[in-house]
Amino acid sequence: MSILQPRRKTRTVRVGDLALGSEHDIRVQSMTKCDTADVEATFDEIVGLEAAGCELVRVAVPSMKQARALGEIKRRITIPLVADIHFSAPLALEAIAQGVDKVRINPGNIGRRDEVEKVVRAAKDAGVAMRIGVNSGSIRERKGLSVEESEEDLVDLCVREALHHVEILESLRFYDTVISVKAHTVSLTVEANRKLAAACDYPLHLGVTHAGSLLPAAVKTSMAYALLLSEGIGDTLRVSVTGDGREEVKIGHQVLQHLGLRRPTFDVYACPSCGRAEVDLVGITKAVEEATKDLTYPCRVAVMGCIVNGPGEAAEADVSISAGRGFGFIYRGSRMIKKVPEADLVAALRAEIESWIAEQSD
Amino acid sequence: MSILQPRRKTRTVRVGDLALGSEHDIRVQSMTKCDTADVEATFDEIVGLEAAGCELVRVAVPSMKQARALGEIKRRITIPLVADIHFSAPLALEAIAQGVDKVRINPGNIGRRDEVEKVVRAAKDAGVAMRIGVNSGSIRERKGLSVEESEEDLVDLCVREALHHVEILESLRFYDTVISVKAHTVSLTVEANRKLAAACDYPLHLGVTHAGSLLPAAVKTSMAYALLLSEGIGDTLRVSVTGDGREEVKIGHQVLQHLGLRRPTFDVYACPSCGRAEVDLVGITKAVEEATKDLTYPCRVAVMGCIVNGPGEAAEADVSISAGRGFGFIYRGSRMIKKVPEADLVAALRAEIESWIAEQSD
Repeated sequence: MSILQPRRKTRTVRVGDLALGSEHDIRVQSMTKCDTADVEATFDEIVGLEAAGCELVRVAVPSMKQARALGEIKRRITIPLVADIHFSAPLALEAIAQGVDKVRINPGNIGRRDEVEKVVRAAKDAGVAMRIGVNSGSIRERKGLSVEESEEDLVDLCVREALHHVEILESLRFYDTVISVKAHTVSLTVEANRKLAAACDYPLHLGVTHAGSLLPAAVKTSMAYALLLSEGIGDTLRVSVTGDGREEVKIGHQVLQHLGLRRPTFDVYACPSCGRAEVDLVGITKAVEEATKDLTYPCRVAVMGCIVNGPGEAAEADVSISAGRGFGFIYRGSRMIKKVPEADLVAALRAEIESWIAEQSD
Repeated sequence: MSILQPRRKTRTVRVGDLALGSEHDIRVQSMTKCDTADVEATFDEIVGLEAAGCELVRVAVPSMKQARALGEIKRRITIPLVADIHFSAPLALEAIAQGVDKVRINPGNIGRRDEVEKVVRAAKDAGVAMRIGVNSGSIRERKGLSVEESEEDLVDLCVREALHHVEILESLRFYDTVISVKAHTVSLTVEANRKLAAACDYPLHLGVTHAGSLLPAAVKTSMAYALLLSEGIGDTLRVSVTGDGREEVKIGHQVLQHLGLRRPTFDVYACPSCGRAEVDLVGITKAVEEATKDLTYPCRVAVMGCIVNGPGEAAEADVSISAGRGFGFIYRGSRMIKKVPEADLVAALRAEIESWIAEQSD
């Protein structure tokens, strides 16, 4: 059973040694937040993002200082590097010369046709992909639309703008293009991507812009991506969070996993606690999360605060605890393994998980 | 424009002075986590939940001690009270006698037919609604299904189980029923509710069980509810979080707002920051959130870390700041209002928001 519709068919676009498109996995990306001219800081940030599961990484290139740092960054990292550039042909040319794998730039905003041609030729010669990125906010400002303007008009304008940039690239026989239309509302994001998906066969990069801090961003983005991905739309995604980029990446993976688009990993879930709980379930859950944070093998671990309903509810877990006052039970699926004093519960759970994982990997 | 399909038609079920069903707003509920026998603690928790936007509240009733506290709790609160009871007819009868507005109990689990009849008659006489609640974990355990059992079979079993309880109530001419089928995966939650929605016209209570701690719970739940609510399925919902119930309620409201199912409220959003930002955007965003946390009037506030792209991106906000090094600009929509030193930015933004709200409310 699946809640997924068939994946929308797209062409394949190569970004370094990664391939984007419907023949390939949906990729999770992020963007660094430090100054790209600071190679050390950028490198450190990328290493952290990669450890969290980031599969391609974008860096901002506002001036030549940052553009010239790209080669050194590229040499030191293993995931594909994307240069984020606005308007400037010289910056795009420098980024391509420095060896980046993709350039995010809208050709229609570069200005002179000969400069556009130079950038596109350089990208083609170097095998560098391009991303066209349209943001609803910029469109609204440029077209002088008020905040009250109909969302339907804005969707049309965003999609038309994206396709306008695509046509420029196609007129130069450039097809290694990924497209994004980003907005900060769920409905605009969903409608614009649906329309874009129907209008072309380029891979789509999903994004909700200015989602805000961690929790509201997670809610908004999870909603938009659940709707689009379940319809088969989306080939790479970024979760924008005003905060740690590693959280962006983790949420991206969670969204894909919940839709069966990524293999599951180690997962702790817990009952929400209620008046039946005789223990500090929030504390125990945090202790379990802390004690297992190094584990990655796919294993479902449940923490239940009720020795009456816990076992039944935990039957869907691989290993679980049902915590009571002063003691708890350790389960595998619905089979009780042992009774443990409360103080030893987390350690005993960890041991049981390790032995379960060892058996699975045999 | 709307990403919503028409709401699934349901009958109306009254829970105290609240009405559930397709003719009414989708209601956000939660459940207390303290011992229901502790009236003071339960009352305090409910007051907090209500302030966060909780519209009906459930309390656990594991024994007669808790059941006898229900009347006093009911008298002191203003939102409808739901008693969560497993198996026990005497507890259900006591809860109804104490004046609760809804009882969550599965009649098929009570056992003796005469006891079922007593409970249903008491509920009918008192105008008390009932919720049938099926959890995939319990079904799996009861039927002896392994963790690997096909999800399709499990969906069928959950839906059949729920409808079995419904039939018992209908055989006693009781129709004030709300149904939930909860699971801890997005796909099972979505498929089971789709199937249930097609099979009956009772209001549905959406829930993802054991969603875990705040962030993973927000991701999983937002995904499942986005899919179901956009299809018109769901009449009341709870977000289960191992943590503060007020967070459950806030997430519930956010989900409804993002789908246009609730009026928007005050909302701060922010760009995710990047290598172009010259300021500590996470810090500024937190300061803005803190400085505006008392505001509820619907106003979109944007915090942008870039004086180049900020203004365009913020054009969709009512009031915004674009922060640069040492200073920032305050905007209304895409109109620049003033330049402010960095130290005064948050206070100036607050003042501008207040004056914007004052103008709107005029």
